[in-house]
Amino acid sequence: MKVFIAGIDGYLGWTLSMYLTARNHEVSGCDNFMRRDWVAERGSQSATPIKEMTERLEAFKENFNSGLQFRRGNLQDYNFVLDCIRSFQPDAIVHLGEMPSAPYSMVDVHHAVFTQVNNIVGTLNILHAMKEACPNAHLVKLGTMGEYGTPNIDIPEGFFEIEYRGRKEKLPFPRQAGSWYHQTKVHDSHNIMFACRIWGIRSTDIMQGVVFGTRIDEMRDDERLLTRFDFDESFGTALNRFCAEAVIGHPLTPFGKGLQKRGFLPLRDSMQCLTIAINNPPKEGEYRVFNQFEEVYDITELAKKVQKVAIKLGLKVEIRNLENPRKEMEDHYYNPDHENLLNLGYKPTHDVEKELEIMLKDLTKYKKNILARQEVLIPDIRWDGSRNKVHYI
Amino acid sequence: MKVFIAGIDGYLGWTLSMYLTARNHEVSGCDNFMRRDWVAERGSQSATPIKEMTERLEAFKENFNSGLQFRRGNLQDYNFVLDCIRSFQPDAIVHLGEMPSAPYSMVDVHHAVFTQVNNIVGTLNILHAMKEACPNAHLVKLGTMGEYGTPNIDIPEGFFEIEYRGRKEKLPFPRQAGSWYHQTKVHDSHNIMFACRIWGIRSTDIMQGVVFGTRIDEMRDDERLLTRFDFDESFGTALNRFCAEAVIGHPLTPFGKGLQKRGFLPLRDSMQCLTIAINNPPKEGEYRVFNQFEEVYDITELAKKVQKVAIKLGLKVEIRNLENPRKEMEDHYYNPDHENLLNLGYKPTHDVEKELEIMLKDLTKYKKNILARQEVLIPDIRWDGSRNKVHYI
Repeated sequence: MKVFIAGIDGYLGWTLSMYLTARNHEVSGCDNFMRRDWVAERGSQSATPIKEMTERLEAFKENFNSGLQFRRGNLQDYNFVLDCIRSFQPDAIVHLGEMPSAPYSMVDVHHAVFTQVNNIVGTLNILHAMKEACPNAHLVKLGTMGEYGTPNIDIPEGFFEIEYRGRKEKLPFPRQAGSWYHQTKVHDSHNIMFACRIWGIRSTDIMQGVVFGTRIDEMRDDERLLTRFDFDESFGTALNRFCAEAVIGHPLTPFGKGLQKRGFLPLRDSMQCLTIAINNPPKEGEYRVFNQFEEVYDITELAKKVQKVAIKLGLKVEIRNLENPRKEMEDHYYNPDHENLLNLGYKPTHDVEKELEIMLKDLTKYKKNILARQEVLIPDIRWDGSRNKVHYI
Repeated sequence: MKVFIAGIDGYLGWTLSMYLTARNHEVSGCDNFMRRDWVAERGSQSATPIKEMTERLEAFKENFNSGLQFRRGNLQDYNFVLDCIRSFQPDAIVHLGEMPSAPYSMVDVHHAVFTQVNNIVGTLNILHAMKEACPNAHLVKLGTMGEYGTPNIDIPEGFFEIEYRGRKEKLPFPRQAGSWYHQTKVHDSHNIMFACRIWGIRSTDIMQGVVFGTRIDEMRDDERLLTRFDFDESFGTALNRFCAEAVIGHPLTPFGKGLQKRGFLPLRDSMQCLTIAINNPPKEGEYRVFNQFEEVYDITELAKKVQKVAIKLGLKVEIRNLENPRKEMEDHYYNPDHENLLNLGYKPTHDVEKELEIMLKDLTKYKKNILARQEVLIPDIRWDGSRNKVHYI
């Protein structure tokens, strides 16, 4: 199949380009390298040494005997999006090209506005370009489990049937997201659902859990193929950050009580799931939702797993909770469904500790990159609008 | 109380400035006159002769012995919004300053993007400015009953308590809006709910039905105080458009089967309800929703009411259904709650026919303005993306 990846220079996008090519998909993609700028703006950098796109493309060609069609451009530019899609005529468009950080969106009004405009306009442009240039293609859109928030009931996959005052109806499950960034994913979901309804667009909206990992097998031992790995407060997700901390002997830092529960999955499983979605498109006009994660853990359980593996590798690691810079429930019910991908053949990697071991070994090679920027590990972007470093509890 | 009206040059905003001033509120407001431009872009104009703001302000001062503080500016400009709010220190901010047309948002990708950016950014800026400059003020935000769509169950006011798999929870009622414009109101609702939760902002989100009417008593007989009245396919709401049609002997034009049900209320009741919301602010951090309408009618019932009153006034009127340019359910269950405003003292004007009589008499004076632009009565903006005039069925 022909797959277009929006955001192909990112953590997931770059990885997916290899994963799909190794499975005989023809891949094209675009990026504007904004993720590199955002991380730099926050005073950080990728722990893994990521190459410029020119070098990435050379390495890609050498390793896969197949070129990757890359175009630089901004998803907010409709003509660019239309031209990409019209010329490539993809069967599937995987939209990973959004600003993905909750703290970044909470910096101030300008970051909130940038995040919402960037994400919403990119998705609106893709939907309109699909309608105009390839109405039968399949949009695989990266959302987040964070769209749902943490309601005190089970979380279905996108929709639920309920009875209310004696009448029954299948309705979208209400969204209660926890940052301006997470809200953009909610807005996108509503916009996409509407486009499917009026234009017959087919879409899979991925409510993804927290991804962790430094590699997939397809990267082989070619360092030029490595994907980025962020550990700063804005772009580093919890488990990736814990691993970066472990490697430099920094305490692992759950926020608040550390009992926040989330769904997690390794990078290789995220690739597997996205590929399953691509290989099994929905029917015309269908808007379907996949909750994409392997297992639910609380943050402290994960910190303990990292600690255990780190100690095995001879690293000295303690866990010290930080004040929570966010406004979120720290101890709550959490029971989301995740059947749709399993029904389509998803085989989860159950060995989290093995994955953590690979990560810690990989990151040890790049320890000095983390040490050089270790001040970015402690958050200072608070949900109450103030800006100062949180303290250990 | 000190009330700031964003969008004070519009249909509701200009009217509200008089309604509130007559009730001893101190009013200030801003506008960028974009509504005038949008209507002109669509080839139309207000049926009522509306004056430039300079003349409006003079007439206001003469009639109310009290000046209206007006500032020109764009809600997308954060510094402008902050400065307005910081200098006036309002007790309530009534946000009516959005692009309010479903068809306008459906013209093409550029109109869709403009609509979503304009509306979302304006609201984000107001929320951030409140947080920064007047965190105890009350945001009265104009949403729409269209946020809910037409689910096959009762529609509560914003939230409902449900049981799902044996657990109970109070959740936001799911939104299923029917245009890019309506989606902006959904996005706003999510953003506002979030701001209330994290910053303690107090807000009333008004899910307003379709408003009709040419005047309120406070406009007296001073023509300079008239508010705008749109009848074009984009900015003219159904009942206002029917009245404009009746006055020039044009058929009344329900779309499709004409059995679409909506909540309606007269302009004077919209003013009464907004004032009740202002006078009864929610508590700190509270996000409450009012479904604001008087009665539910289907479109054909309303066309028949207009026809009946018009015939009484000697006008010749027939009803001819048009192809439906929209994608919407044309025959459906519809039973929304509307208790919150009644509980706070809302006394609905039950005499719709009397209101229609006032409207038809008012519009007869401006018949030539409608005749001059009568081609804008027949829609050509279709939800399927094509652009050609719909036909009579």
